[in-house]
Amino acid sequence: METHLQSTDLKNDTLLRALAREPTAHTPVWLMRQAGRYLPEYNATRAKAGSFLKLAKTPALAAEVALQPLARFPLDAAILFSDILTVPDAMGLGLYFAEGEGPRFERPLRDEAAIMRLAAPDPTAELRYVLEAVRETRNALGNRVPLIGFSGSPYTLACYMIEGSGSDDWRTVKEMLYARPDLLHRILDVNARAVTDYLNAQIEAGAQAVMLFDTWGGSLTAAQYEEFSLSYMRRVLSQVRNAPRIVFTKGGGGWLESIAASGCEAVGLDWTVAPGDARRRIGASVALQGNLDPAVLSAPPARAREEVRRVLDAFGAAPGHVFNLGHGISPHARVDTVEAIVDEVCAYSRQLRPQAR
Amino acid sequence: METHLQSTDLKNDTLLRALAREPTAHTPVWLMRQAGRYLPEYNATRAKAGSFLKLAKTPALAAEVALQPLARFPLDAAILFSDILTVPDAMGLGLYFAEGEGPRFERPLRDEAAIMRLAAPDPTAELRYVLEAVRETRNALGNRVPLIGFSGSPYTLACYMIEGSGSDDWRTVKEMLYARPDLLHRILDVNARAVTDYLNAQIEAGAQAVMLFDTWGGSLTAAQYEEFSLSYMRRVLSQVRNAPRIVFTKGGGGWLESIAASGCEAVGLDWTVAPGDARRRIGASVALQGNLDPAVLSAPPARAREEVRRVLDAFGAAPGHVFNLGHGISPHARVDTVEAIVDEVCAYSRQLRPQAR
Repeated sequence: METHLQSTDLKNDTLLRALAREPTAHTPVWLMRQAGRYLPEYNATRAKAGSFLKLAKTPALAAEVALQPLARFPLDAAILFSDILTVPDAMGLGLYFAEGEGPRFERPLRDEAAIMRLAAPDPTAELRYVLEAVRETRNALGNRVPLIGFSGSPYTLACYMIEGSGSDDWRTVKEMLYARPDLLHRILDVNARAVTDYLNAQIEAGAQAVMLFDTWGGSLTAAQYEEFSLSYMRRVLSQVRNAPRIVFTKGGGGWLESIAASGCEAVGLDWTVAPGDARRRIGASVALQGNLDPAVLSAPPARAREEVRRVLDAFGAAPGHVFNLGHGISPHARVDTVEAIVDEVCAYSRQLRPQAR
Repeated sequence: METHLQSTDLKNDTLLRALAREPTAHTPVWLMRQAGRYLPEYNATRAKAGSFLKLAKTPALAAEVALQPLARFPLDAAILFSDILTVPDAMGLGLYFAEGEGPRFERPLRDEAAIMRLAAPDPTAELRYVLEAVRETRNALGNRVPLIGFSGSPYTLACYMIEGSGSDDWRTVKEMLYARPDLLHRILDVNARAVTDYLNAQIEAGAQAVMLFDTWGGSLTAAQYEEFSLSYMRRVLSQVRNAPRIVFTKGGGGWLESIAASGCEAVGLDWTVAPGDARRRIGASVALQGNLDPAVLSAPPARAREEVRRVLDAFGAAPGHVFNLGHGISPHARVDTVEAIVDEVCAYSRQLRPQAR
C-alpha cells in the first residue's frame, strides 16, 4: 500500500494511522457532511454557485467548501465535496435536486431495455469534474491532513436509480428484488464496476482514503443484505487499491461481523450501535469509525462534550478508533457545538492514553 | 394467568399456545395492520365512517373492520382496530390526520407548564370507545380466535406528543432529551402509567393478548434506549396482568437480549433481523414474532410463498414462533399475495412438524 509513503509527507497523519490500527496521540476526528449547510460560509459559496449541484460540479468551489470546516475546527481529515449519486448521473440518469427535497433522477430505471443499456462510465471523462475537485482540494490542503474520497455503494446507488428519489420503503426497488432479481443483479454488477473505477480514479487523483456509503443497505433482510449489498461491496473492495477503505452501512448493526470481513480497513457504526458490543463482536481486525448521535449537534456545547466523552469511553483507548458521527450533520447543527465536539475529542482522548500523559 | 381458562373456550387457541411456547399443530399467523387499506371492504367501511379517526372511534365499525381480514383468510388472531396514539389524544393533545399524511397533534408538548399539567387519562372515561370496541369485537368473534389489544410504547407516544407529527430525525424530541431530560422523563412517567391502565382496561374488556408497539425506540442510542424506552416498557409490563405480552421495537435488533428480559412473553422482530441469530442470542425464554419483509406483500403469490418458507425455516420447528410481518401491511399489498402467505404458513409449518405428519 502507498498509504505510508503518502502519510510520511502529511503534517497530520493521525487518521491514516488510526485506520491502520496504529497508536496515535489522540483519536482522529472528522464528521460526515462536515462541509454543509450548518456553516454560514458554506451557504455563501453555495449561493454564489447557484445550486448544490453546480457547487459540486465546479472543482474550485468544491475545494473551497471542502476546506471551510478545517479553517474553523482542528479536524484530522478533509472529505471530498461531492454527492453519493455522481456515478448514476454520469450514466445519464439526470440527477437533480428539487428545492427542499432530496435527490431525484429524471430518468429512473423502469424498463428492461434501459437496464440492459446501462454501462459503467469512464471516470476520466464523465466524472472528470470530481477528479479535478480531488486534485484541487489536495492542492489547497497542502498536506495538512489526508483527503477522503467516497462513493455510494452499488446497492444504495441502485435504490435511487430504480426508485428515482428517496423513499420510506423503497417499494419499487423491492418489487424488482422479488419479481426480477436478475435485473437488480444486472444493475448492481454495472454499479460495482463503475464504483471500483471511480474510487480508483479518485485515489489516483489524490484521495488518501476512501469510504463506501451504504445508506440504504439497512432496509434489506439479513440474507438480502449479503446477496444484494455486501457481496457487491466486497467485489469493489477487492479491486480498490492503494488507500485504506471504510465501509458504512446505516442500520447495518446486525451484520457487523460480515461487514468487518468484507475486505475493508474500517467499519463505520451508526449511533444505535453500542461501541463496546461492536468491538467484542468484530475483534481487533479492523478499525471502527463513529458514532456520536448526530442529534447531539443541536444540544448545548457542554452537553455535547459529555456525550463525546461517553462515546470515547465506550470505544476505549485501544488503537483503531476514528471519531465521527453516526450519520451526517444536519443543517440544524450549532457551530459552537461542533467546535466543542472536535475540541473535546482531542483533549479527552489524549487523557485516555496513558503514554500521552 | 387467566389465559388458559380463556383459551379453553377458544375454538382456535394456537396463538396463545405459541405465546406460551407450547407445541402447536401449525405456526399461528396474524399480520400487523391486517385490517387496512389494501382491503376493498375496509375502504368501503372507512368511506361510510368518513375518516380513519371516525372509524376508530365508532365501536361497531371498528369491530366490523377488525373482522374483515378473518372473513377472507384463516388468521389465528384478530387485533383491535384502533390507533397507537389514542392515549395522548385522550390526554387532550388533539389527534388528527391530514389527508395522505401521518398522525398529527393540534397541541404538541412544547412548554414546561403543559408537560407538568399532563395526566394519565381514565381509560373507562376518555378511552371508553376503545373498550367498547374491544367488547364488540370479542362479541363478533364468538371465540373463534383470540383478540389482541395494543398500545404505543411510552417512548413512541412521547415522540409524537413532543414532535407533533412523524419525523425523519425526531429533532424536537432529541433536543429535549439532551437539554431537558427531566421533562422527557416526566412525560414518560405519565405515559407509562397511562399505558398500564389502558392495557389492563383492554384486558378487562376482553383482550386476550396485548402488544406494545415501540415504533421509534430504534432511533435512540443503545444507552438511551435503555433509559428512555425499555425501562418504561419494563414498568408497564410488570403491572399488566392476565394476558400474554408482546413487545416490538422496530430497529431494536441490537438489543434483543434486554428486550427478551423485560418481562414479556414474546419479542417482535423486524424484517432486518436473522431469526436464527435472534433465537441463538435470546434462547428459549420467550416466544418470537415475525418477521417477513412487508415488501413481499407486493410480490406475486408464488414468490411470496417461497419467502414464507424461508422465514419458517429460519425460525425452525421449535415451539414459540408466531408468524407475522416485520412491519405493518402497506396499502399496496396484493390481496391474492396475503391469501397465499397465510395459506403457506399453515401448510408449510405443518410439514415442518414431525408429530403432525
